[in-house]
Amino acid sequence: MRKITVLVGSLREGSNSGKLAKALEKLSAEHFEFHYPDLNLPLYNEDLWKNPPASVLKLKADLAATDAVLFVTPEYNRSIPPVIKNVIDWGSRPWGQSSWKNKPVGIVGSSPGAVGSAAAQSHLRSILVTQDVFLLGAPEVYFVFKPDSIDDQGTVADEGSKKFLKSYTDRFAQWIEIVSK
Amino acid sequence: MRKITVLVGSLREGSNSGKLAKALEKLSAEHFEFHYPDLNLPLYNEDLWKNPPASVLKLKADLAATDAVLFVTPEYNRSIPPVIKNVIDWGSRPWGQSSWKNKPVGIVGSSPGAVGSAAAQSHLRSILVTQDVFLLGAPEVYFVFKPDSIDDQGTVADEGSKKFLKSYTDRFAQWIEIVSK
Repeated sequence: MRKITVLVGSLREGSNSGKLAKALEKLSAEHFEFHYPDLNLPLYNEDLWKNPPASVLKLKADLAATDAVLFVTPEYNRSIPPVIKNVIDWGSRPWGQSSWKNKPVGIVGSSPGAVGSAAAQSHLRSILVTQDVFLLGAPEVYFVFKPDSIDDQGTVADEGSKKFLKSYTDRFAQWIEIVSK
Repeated sequence: MRKITVLVGSLREGSNSGKLAKALEKLSAEHFEFHYPDLNLPLYNEDLWKNPPASVLKLKADLAATDAVLFVTPEYNRSIPPVIKNVIDWGSRPWGQSSWKNKPVGIVGSSPGAVGSAAAQSHLRSILVTQDVFLLGAPEVYFVFKPDSIDDQGTVADEGSKKFLKSYTDRFAQWIEIVSK
């Protein structure tokens, strides 16, 4: 069983991203243990390293102990939400002590509109290049989230979507084995 | 005199972005009054609109009363810092009540490396498209910030840089007049 740190980009209760993460968790129970760190960190401020917030140190300890990272991002104004950029920037520092280096990483996302978070994911991929991660390419998951697509328990309504999401988790499990030495 | 809301992307004391903003303020005193709102807002969370944070309401009131907006961005991991995405997302909501619509907007930025924040600014431009702003194109300011480029009082060491920054503020002043009806 691989430990997966799941970074859900929305802080609101009952978010689509939270439901999508839950769905992936259920579909991949044979491979993975999902962990959901608290992402309500202070906004990145270099000065805070003088006396680092406990929440930031906990996040970095979580990342140090994880086998892989899965981003589950909504799209806010054609990019990632601040919560995602914030966790990346905290994890990337202090200089030379990035928590991301050599981690297997997957990206999935959803939005209510037709774009399915593709613009956000494009920004996210370009940002992660800086962190020297093992970033899974295909399949890409641009999940168009209709009101009943996934319920609070992570049950996926449509059988085709369920199969596709399952295939994503299977591929991510393979990917982790390929790049983890 | 035009009121300019200046959004400085770094929260640390004595940041390069803060110095760059100060330099532009000094060079444009004939045109502008600069205002620096507090950007240490909570991370964007849709649920908080039920009881909006005072800091968010203050920001939106500031933006409603301003003539134009100037982003001064550093580059964190080849994109904008979370503080910049966060202020954009708060300003863009509630739905239909964007604080950015029809505002004249300028973007400048700096980084210590050769890129001069160009990757961050590229993301920022693509995000601002969603907000229906009047975004100034050229000149682009990718300021490579060496330790002594600009001091705490906003004095620019190099004469060529000073002239270039002054020309930027002159053009931004023109731009505001062109697009403000």
